[in-house]
Amino acid sequence: MVKIGVVGGGQLARMMIPAAINLGVDIAVFSEVEGSSAKLATSHVGDYTNLDELSEFSTDVDVLTFDHEHVPLGLLNALVERGVNVSPPPSALALVQNKIVMRKALTALGLPQPRWAEVTTESELLSAVDSIGGFPCIAKLPVGGYDGKGVRVVAGAGDVTDWLTEGPVLLEEKVGFRRELSQLGARNSSGEWVAWPVVETRQAHGVCSDVIAPAPSLSVTQMANAVAIGEQIAEQVGVIGVLAVELFENAEGQLLVNELAMRPHNSGHVFTELSVTSQFEQHLRSVSNMPLGSTALIAETGIMVNLFGGVDADLSAKVWTKYPEAKIHSYQKQPRSGRKAGHVVVVGLEWVELLETGIAVRDILSERDYDG
Amino acid sequence: MVKIGVVGGGQLARMMIPAAINLGVDIAVFSEVEGSSAKLATSHVGDYTNLDELSEFSTDVDVLTFDHEHVPLGLLNALVERGVNVSPPPSALALVQNKIVMRKALTALGLPQPRWAEVTTESELLSAVDSIGGFPCIAKLPVGGYDGKGVRVVAGAGDVTDWLTEGPVLLEEKVGFRRELSQLGARNSSGEWVAWPVVETRQAHGVCSDVIAPAPSLSVTQMANAVAIGEQIAEQVGVIGVLAVELFENAEGQLLVNELAMRPHNSGHVFTELSVTSQFEQHLRSVSNMPLGSTALIAETGIMVNLFGGVDADLSAKVWTKYPEAKIHSYQKQPRSGRKAGHVVVVGLEWVELLETGIAVRDILSERDYDG
Repeated sequence: MVKIGVVGGGQLARMMIPAAINLGVDIAVFSEVEGSSAKLATSHVGDYTNLDELSEFSTDVDVLTFDHEHVPLGLLNALVERGVNVSPPPSALALVQNKIVMRKALTALGLPQPRWAEVTTESELLSAVDSIGGFPCIAKLPVGGYDGKGVRVVAGAGDVTDWLTEGPVLLEEKVGFRRELSQLGARNSSGEWVAWPVVETRQAHGVCSDVIAPAPSLSVTQMANAVAIGEQIAEQVGVIGVLAVELFENAEGQLLVNELAMRPHNSGHVFTELSVTSQFEQHLRSVSNMPLGSTALIAETGIMVNLFGGVDADLSAKVWTKYPEAKIHSYQKQPRSGRKAGHVVVVGLEWVELLETGIAVRDILSERDYDG
Repeated sequence: MVKIGVVGGGQLARMMIPAAINLGVDIAVFSEVEGSSAKLATSHVGDYTNLDELSEFSTDVDVLTFDHEHVPLGLLNALVERGVNVSPPPSALALVQNKIVMRKALTALGLPQPRWAEVTTESELLSAVDSIGGFPCIAKLPVGGYDGKGVRVVAGAGDVTDWLTEGPVLLEEKVGFRRELSQLGARNSSGEWVAWPVVETRQAHGVCSDVIAPAPSLSVTQMANAVAIGEQIAEQVGVIGVLAVELFENAEGQLLVNELAMRPHNSGHVFTELSVTSQFEQHLRSVSNMPLGSTALIAETGIMVNLFGGVDADLSAKVWTKYPEAKIHSYQKQPRSGRKAGHVVVVGLEWVELLETGIAVRDILSERDYDG
């Protein structure tokens, strides 16, 4: 019996548990805290930056995978040296741990992306900005950013002075994009690659708010292009597991790579209900080198909306009385204003109607205020 | 946060775990053995006929429900007296614990069923058999039978002599049925009732082998009739949770009640993939008195085939290479010849093709022999 170890006890690890049960594989979670979202499968609570703890946890599993990308690369390499099957491999994870490493790798692959530059000193800044099209541009901390944190719009020379004292900063062209897309797929260690149709993602305050799947009004060429970008990255970088490629569709309809993730991703939650195989199941299949499942869609279209703050039981009941088709997922997190607390998926025929339903559901669930 | 306690660690408890995770409720399982199918949620291993153990387990949960019907009725009543929320209530469970109690209750409700008689002595036998249409007829032990066990075809007076020394025996008319059906639905304690479309079940050696959903070639009247039978039983008996009504369709197309179950049922596994709401999720919603989920179908039709013996990982890989759309569920039981070890669901447009796929999948998984 395969046993999969997951580092991180957040909602992604949580949602791997149903997939493990359905597949008939064992799962164990290394969580940072007691009572995490993934508490049901948690076998160890500890510090994921401690090699000995991670090593001890790994002795009991066949493969080690992740719910986040925060385990230091040196530590991952040390685990590999100790014989742990780390999937995706550290050489692939290097790209999602450092955005400068990612930009360099994508450049080497010749993939379309925003113009970018690395700066380490204030004196390099102006020529670097000039090389990517001038102000305003985007500055990113290469390490540790997520959900809009560690990202800034830069309007003038002094805007990244504080960051430069800490280390190199990534500058990117501010792309005039029509919208954002996300291409998800998975690759197993036999090299099999299977993709889902590209989705449209909508953000609010720098955080993913809504997803429409498949992305409406894309040409077949664009769809195939998105899949090809995902496949090229997965193969060339040696990804094992789910790969999410966040894309900009620019004003000319060209797709540019924005960000990568090598794990199940918020933009893929919709496939739990919409596709024969969820991203969580596909991730577990990939890292344990099973053949990948069908990514055929079960309905014409589906939408996902994120829920913030908390997911109140009484308000959920109110939702279901009106929308029994709404699949509300609660992550069982301690409620906190603005926190991703769950999501809702609705599938059917027309995305416009489904999204209206999803937003109506979120409005009902937002009647309770978690600011206090 | 609602916490649901489940007595029994079999595959039904196992499959409630993903539903609990998706709904965002806590779940704890009282299992008979270490390493059961539901081990991931098991918080207590013990004896379900021990009142104190059950009582202790119940103090930590908001509602107590079941993966089987073997907890003695007296014990369930004692738990209720101690303030435990037992769902379904013992008054309803009485019908599934004793087939004679069930026949009497269905007679009182005026529901269509095979002619039946209760016999306690050899001397009553011939007149009882006469009253239900003569030999051959069916004899059933009122308590403890399942999957064809405790059921006999009776051809002559001496055929139940041994059983009569143990207690009363239920005799039933041997119905000349076209096929067997199963009507599933759920009722919560607010009295809300939601049904799935009736399914066709096919048996081999007295055990459910295949399910086709919805049952093909039924008239709308028959479908509505099946739902009405389920609803009448659920309401009049006060079922809380999933109710499965096993039905015979006789030569005239009339539906007769064969058996009942008040928990998720093998014939409903297909709805995990086929319906917006699985029977496991619906059961948890019912017993915790949430509004019930939509039972709309996601595809035109679906089939389920049971897997016996074991579910070999290499053979599963072989299946997926050919049929990536097959959803194989392994219950992670110790392999044993003839044991229900898992099931496969395929959904799509034409049940004949889907069933061919399902049977082909089972054939591949049967290449390994668990007799040894």
